Amino acid sequence: MSHCQDCKKHHNMENDSFIEPLISRIFESYADDIAVNRNDRSNLPRESEILKALNGLLELIFPGYAEREAHSPATLRYAVGEIVTSLNMTLNSLFLRAFLFNCKNSGKKDCDCHAEAATAARELLEAIPSLRESMKLDIQAAYAGDPAARSLDEIVLSYPGVKAITIQRIAHKLYQLKVPMIPRMMTEYAHRITGIDIHPGAKLGKGVFIDHGTGVVIGETAELGNDVKIYQGVTLGALSFPKDACGMIIKGAKRHPTIEDGVTIYAGATILGAITIGKNSVIGGNVWLTEGTEPGTKITIASPELTINKSRKNPV
Amino acid sequence: MSHCQDCKKHHNMENDSFIEPLISRIFESYADDIAVNRNDRSNLPRESEILKALNGLLELIFPGYAEREAHSPATLRYAVGEIVTSLNMTLNSLFLRAFLFNCKNSGKKDCDCHAEAATAARELLEAIPSLRESMKLDIQAAYAGDPAARSLDEIVLSYPGVKAITIQRIAHKLYQLKVPMIPRMMTEYAHRITGIDIHPGAKLGKGVFIDHGTGVVIGETAELGNDVKIYQGVTLGALSFPKDACGMIIKGAKRHPTIEDGVTIYAGATILGAITIGKNSVIGGNVWLTEGTEPGTKITIASPELTINKSRKNPV
Amino acid sequence: MSHCQDCKKHHNMENDSFIEPLISRIFESYADDIAVNRNDRSNLPRESEILKALNGLLELIFPGYAEREAHSPATLRYAVGEIVTSLNMTLNSLFLRAFLFNCKNSGKKDCDCHAEAATAARELLEAIPSLRESMKLDIQAAYAGDPAARSLDEIVLSYPGVKAITIQRIAHKLYQLKVPMIPRMMTEYAHRITGIDIHPGAKLGKGVFIDHGTGVVIGETAELGNDVKIYQGVTLGALSFPKDACGMIIKGAKRHPTIEDGVTIYAGATILGAITIGKNSVIGGNVWLTEGTEPGTKITIASPELTINKSRKNPV
Repeated sequence: MSHCQDCKKHHNMENDSFIEPLISRIFESYADDIAVNRNDRSNLPRESEILKALNGLLELIFPGYAEREAHSPATLRYAVGEIVTSLNMTLNSLFLRAFLFNCKNSGKKDCDCHAEAATAARELLEAIPSLRESMKLDIQAAYAGDPAARSLDEIVLSYPGVKAITIQRIAHKLYQLKVPMIPRMMTEYAHRITGIDIHPGAKLGKGVFIDHGTGVVIGETAELGNDVKIYQGVTLGALSFPKDACGMIIKGAKRHPTIEDGVTIYAGATILGAITIGKNSVIGGNVWLTEGTEPGTKITIASPELTINKSRKNPV
Repeated sequence: MSHCQDCKKHHNMENDSFIEPLISRIFESYADDIAVNRNDRSNLPRESEILKALNGLLELIFPGYAEREAHSPATLRYAVGEIVTSLNMTLNSLFLRAFLFNCKNSGKKDCDCHAEAATAARELLEAIPSLRESMKLDIQAAYAGDPAARSLDEIVLSYPGVKAITIQRIAHKLYQLKVPMIPRMMTEYAHRITGIDIHPGAKLGKGVFIDHGTGVVIGETAELGNDVKIYQGVTLGALSFPKDACGMIIKGAKRHPTIEDGVTIYAGATILGAITIGKNSVIGGNVWLTEGTEPGTKITIASPELTINKSRKNPV
Repeated sequence: MSHCQDCKKHHNMENDSFIEPLISRIFESYADDIAVNRNDRSNLPRESEILKALNGLLELIFPGYAEREAHSPATLRYAVGEIVTSLNMTLNSLFLRAFLFNCKNSGKKDCDCHAEAATAARELLEAIPSLRESMKLDIQAAYAGDPAARSLDEIVLSYPGVKAITIQRIAHKLYQLKVPMIPRMMTEYAHRITGIDIHPGAKLGKGVFIDHGTGVVIGETAELGNDVKIYQGVTLGALSFPKDACGMIIKGAKRHPTIEDGVTIYAGATILGAITIGKNSVIGGNVWLTEGTEPGTKITIASPELTINKSRKNPV
């Protein structure tokens, strides 16, 4: 063995001496079993499983657009059967895990988690035909509203608004069925791939079109009517948070806008609070609104005062 | 067998009785072969194949930055040969599928889809050297424009603007060659991973730099000159949509801005309509513009009136 | 062989004749070894390896939330040990590659890249317990600040702000240790999955909450105190770039805001330049600020002048 190799060996052993005490320090910091420390990890729903289930649902809602092997119309019925039965098992197990975790966590004793999980799986699967009807209307709304759309297929294949809305409609169903954690993980997945952040609690009408969509935020208690059009950067948010006697924020209270049928909200507009935007109103780009409107109202910001041709510090 | 297992078996069977009729309901809802219902799925280009092709193209455009095995300069020529020949086959088959689907869908009879696909694949591959020249200039523009950039390599490895622009330049080539659906799927992939939404139809000059980029939207008929700098949240959008006699939106008509050489557009600015922003103009942050500018114009918003130190409802 | 097959064969061969010269053209364009041309690809850190290391770190910081196999508290110590020792090797090799590339690239001769890589790996691993303490405070801040948050677990599992901040805190550690390229690749990964772009150089205090987050940009020299709340679309950016005598931008100079303890910055606000926002200030939505504030200042934009009910061109 050469001198140098000895050195290196010695060097490495010295370098690695920090590892043993570090492992102990990290391990000891896991002693309490609260958030940031879920030692019994079998209890939490895993994102990879949720995405697998979501893909199965999308496969049923938009047959032919997904990644699975091709099949002919003749064999389609068997494919559908296989996906539905497999999804039923996957969803049962996912939801069970979420319900059990929630019960254990909140110290409840009288839960019937198995029944709740089975009901949630069944109700979600039974909702597929009506979800399909909703999505058809959303896709037609996108085609009618976007001069750049060349075909309905292009919209299904590549419009982020359609992806975000489909996933939110699925998550909203689970939100109504009080499945813990999973609805929010689903919409956050949609947020990640589209930049569109719609809380699972938001109620969407028929024929909703969100174009481009990056930066759109739609809060938990927002309600949208039919034929609503929304562009990138629109926020339907809260103006203030109702608090209880102890000054703690009350979870779940109505605090976001209601948008009636036929309303269009252009890019960057911000609408805050539990207000109502009346039917067929048009909210212009960048408008900042904290009061409701009568039906048919058209609101635009006054042309901003511009400083032209003068040499100023460059805003970046 | 214990009593309990019998119960469970019975219970499960009852629970699952909803599945058979549900499968039928879903299957029957697939009867028409329109969007949301593509039974013969072999016809549609799949996203996974498009991304595989895109990765091959990026491998050729930025050799050494991708995930493939290392190879020495001596073997590089063979690696390039292998990627190009393999890409040629992949692109042919992808484009063929897109052209065939489009023909079938629009009921055309006289298409020569095989020839169109082969031409598109060849023209895209032959454009690689000039795409590389474009990307060099874009990367140099990023280095010159960003004080946080430490090296050109850092820019290639981690700047979202460079990723979005590279993919858009590829997609624009395919848009010009009238390949259906795939260009939009490519730019939507870029949108997903960068938050930058540039339509494949947009024309970009040399040395374009988009910094941060989240929320940038550049519409189908926008045109950018050379040395244009764009920050996060900038929209180059449409002010209104030309409609035909029946009130239907005309697809493809010019409706987005033309940005001339040397223009800088700061964060959150919105420029709408088929207007021209003259050479070397500077458009300040948050400016809202629906009219063109002379060359050399500098526009900033007047300092907004601020209410300071007063207790108001907190906007959220 | 049929006539037709012959034709096709002939046809294909003709079609493919462009490939050989194209390969040569592409290969020749790789002659110089500058950015856009890294032939010896073994030198660059690969994104897939960085993400693998990042996942290991997240596994240690949030045990139980990741995708690995379940293990019981009894076996947890061994799992921690295995992850730490494996991470130590991975990080060493990743950082070594980055340091070596940087040395080669900048022509330095006197680097001790092996020692620098080992130090960086050790210091990052040793920082895990304090990173965990930071993340606990961030998660509690999110729970206290968001009425839609139902549990701490939901926040760990699905809040993009928590993901972005965790990754930035890791990257910031590496930025301080002067590891090249990898910190920026890490925060750009966070940007990609969350829309939140925090430069590795930014200094974050304790209990930082970023809600929704899409479009947030926090620059390299920004500094945040404790208990800072930030909403979607907020920019903490530069107003101008200090330049040297040759007119070149000076890399790394202080140019972004300092945000003191307890400050809240609502959606879409833009704060630019090396200014200070004093303790407990509240910056309203859409405010555009280029001057610092005294502690306790509350700033909102004056209600914008709105044009209501008049028929104007629709801004899009």
